[in-house]
Parts: sequence; structure tokens; C-alpha cells
Amino acid sequence: MSTVIFSLRHHEDGELPSVVLPLVRRTRDPHEGQWALPGGWLDASENLEAAASRTLAETTALAPSYLEQLYAFGDVGRSPARVVSIVYWALVREDIASTPLPADENVAWFDAAALPPLAFDHDLIVEYALWRLRNKVGYSRIAHGLLPELFTLAELREVYEAIGGRRLDPANFRRQVDGSGTLIPTDDFRTGSHRPARLYRYNHDVELADRGPLPR
Amino acid sequence: MSTVIFSLRHHEDGELPSVVLPLVRRTRDPHEGQWALPGGWLDASENLEAAASRTLAETTALAPSYLEQLYAFGDVGRSPARVVSIVYWALVREDIASTPLPADENVAWFDAAALPPLAFDHDLIVEYALWRLRNKVGYSRIAHGLLPELFTLAELREVYEAIGGRRLDPANFRRQVDGSGTLIPTDDFRTGSHRPARLYRYNHDVELADRGPLPR
Repeated sequence: MSTVIFSLRHHEDGELPSVVLPLVRRTRDPHEGQWALPGGWLDASENLEAAASRTLAETTALAPSYLEQLYAFGDVGRSPARVVSIVYWALVREDIASTPLPADENVAWFDAAALPPLAFDHDLIVEYALWRLRNKVGYSRIAHGLLPELFTLAELREVYEAIGGRRLDPANFRRQVDGSGTLIPTDDFRTGSHRPARLYRYNHDVELADRGPLPR
Repeated sequence: MSTVIFSLRHHEDGELPSVVLPLVRRTRDPHEGQWALPGGWLDASENLEAAASRTLAETTALAPSYLEQLYAFGDVGRSPARVVSIVYWALVREDIASTPLPADENVAWFDAAALPPLAFDHDLIVEYALWRLRNKVGYSRIAHGLLPELFTLAELREVYEAIGGRRLDPANFRRQVDGSGTLIPTDDFRTGSHRPARLYRYNHDVELADRGPLPR
């Protein structure tokens, strides 16, 4: 079991936020010293999603806002011993991702656009997870999994910009969001160096994304 | 490994075609005598997709036009011994599905809308595969996986009708298909009891559905 955990990181220089993910440095062979996805082994008494949550917590101490099965990777040559890995992907809000990782020099956050070569086939797995994230953000409300409970339209737009890798027109974005009818405006405003911006929340009655009819 | 294999079956009475799938009757415990999805065990020297193709051919002798990983099912209680099953789903064209199954009373086609209770969690798996089929037919050209090389617009429409479970307006359907620009009209016509209908083929340059950036 491995998990690709995405979060966002804002930069002070006003650049697009980065999509970031935590990696774990391997302390034994194969691929000793290389960075790899956090993961672990499935216990005999554990469901797959529970194992993904557990290994994610054990290696990174993070609590995800979204968790979904990505794919089962099982190519014969992907590891010296034949290993089929069931991979999940997760979203973590930036405020949670900002809490320090376990005091371990072998766990660190990386920019998804500037990864070192990863162990096993984990480059391919991250590429596929990024594709799923970009794809799914287009037809679901999964962007909310990267936001706190209350957020401004500019903050929501930045999530789409970070995932898509390009700036969006603020007026067009506002029109699209207003038209979708999925956001609930609150009476609160974000104040600070800019003019006050209204805070929104999303409708909790609706799932972030449709993961099919599988029972939860 | 198991595979949910979908095909279509036309009826003589002019009813909507049925979505059908082959099942295999179990000849040993657990669940002896119950119907189950075709499948088998992964060989140590075999990639996952190769194993799905092989077990599909061994149990049903069918050649699929489309094959995609569905999901890894691994709930602790799904089988007496802990078994994680990586499930694929496949499409088989109706003309291929019409060739006789292996001379084995333990393999048979069933209407997806009238299944017997299945072994293990295979009811849930079929439900999820049907959801994926219905979902994917809306945003990909996967319907072509159920059609022969040349087909009329009425035949294409019937695929959508069978999967969606309801009749579609022929004029609206023709407009949508014409607007999509994905079909190539040929100079051939289907003749018979009705007035001649033009035959179309689909553009082979485009994949039936986007299965992500995974190398094939």
C-alpha cells in the first residue's frame, strides 16, 4: 500500500501556489537512500482504505480531507520481489500540511513539479495521481479538499490555478462559481491588507467527489 | 483477479437491447453452486492486465474490445480466507459474444438487470462496474467497444439506450453525434427491411476512453 498525498504551498512572492507531496527516504534496500511514497503493508485484519489511512498517519502524521483508491500497480519488474501495490491518493488542507512533519529527516515535502527520481515505479504513480487530480478537479468539487472550512473566492481560484498550472481570469471564475450554485456565502469577511473579501463555505450535504456506489 | 465482461443482447420483439455479462458457476466451496465473475489467480511472472486477459480467455474464450482496471476489492470479510481481488472490466462486441461459450454448463450469459445472487461480494462489484460503464459512456466513446467496425446511427443509439435503460429521441441523438465530429461516414449502407441507412466507423486515431497516462 502506498499513498500519494497532495497539498498546496503558498509562496510569499505572489507566484502560483505549488502542489506539494510528502515523501519518505528509504533506509534500506532496495533503493536505499531514494525518496519514495509513504506506505506500508496491509494487515490481515484490515480493510484496504483503513490500511491506507493507517500507513498515511504512521509515516506522515497527517489527516487527509479526501482519500480515494487510485490504482493497483503490479508490473512484474516494478520491484525485485513481485509486489502488487494498491495505491490511494489523498488531499490534505494546507493549514494541516503546515504543521511540522514527524521529527525525522527522512520525511519531507516536495514540489510536485520538481521531484527527485523516486524509488520503484513511484514516478509513474505520482504522474498518474497528478493526472487524476487535474482531471477530477474539472468535474467535481474536489478543490474544497485543499481548503479550510471558510475561504474566499480568490483562495478557491488559487487552488484551481495551482492544480492547472496557470492563472485564471478572476471575473470569469466568479461567474462560473456563481453559476454552479455549490457555494454558500457567509456573512463573514476576510480582512487584511486588501479590501474585505466575503468568506464562503461549501455545502456539506454533497460529497467532494463521486467515488461510485461503494459503501463507506 | 476477476473481470466483469459486458456485452449487449438484442431481442426480437423490438425491446431495448439488454446489457449482459457471462458468469461462471462455482464447482467448489466456498459458495459452491453459486454464480460468480470469471477470474483466476495472478501468476508470479505476469502483469496485472495480462492476467486479466488470460483468465478472461480461459474461462469464457472471449476476446474483449476494451479492458480497464476497475478497482481492488479487499474487505476483510469478503471471503473466508483474506483475498484481495484486483478486478478488471471489459467490453465484448455483440457478434463476438454471440459465438457459443465453451461447452460447459457452468458458464452462461445473464441479463445485468436480472442477476441471481452472486458469490462473495460479486453483486457489489457488478453494481460498481455498471456504474462505471454508465458514467463513462457519457464522456467517452466507449460505446464503440460494443459495436462492430461499421454501424448505423440507429445501432449506435441502441447502445446508449441499452446502457442508459431508456429510449432516446433519434433526431436529437443524430444532432449530438453530428456535432461531436468523432464519427466518420462511409459510402456503404445497411439495407434490409428498412430504408437504407448509412454505415459509420469511428476514428481509430483516438482511444475509446482515456485510461490515464499509464503506459500500455
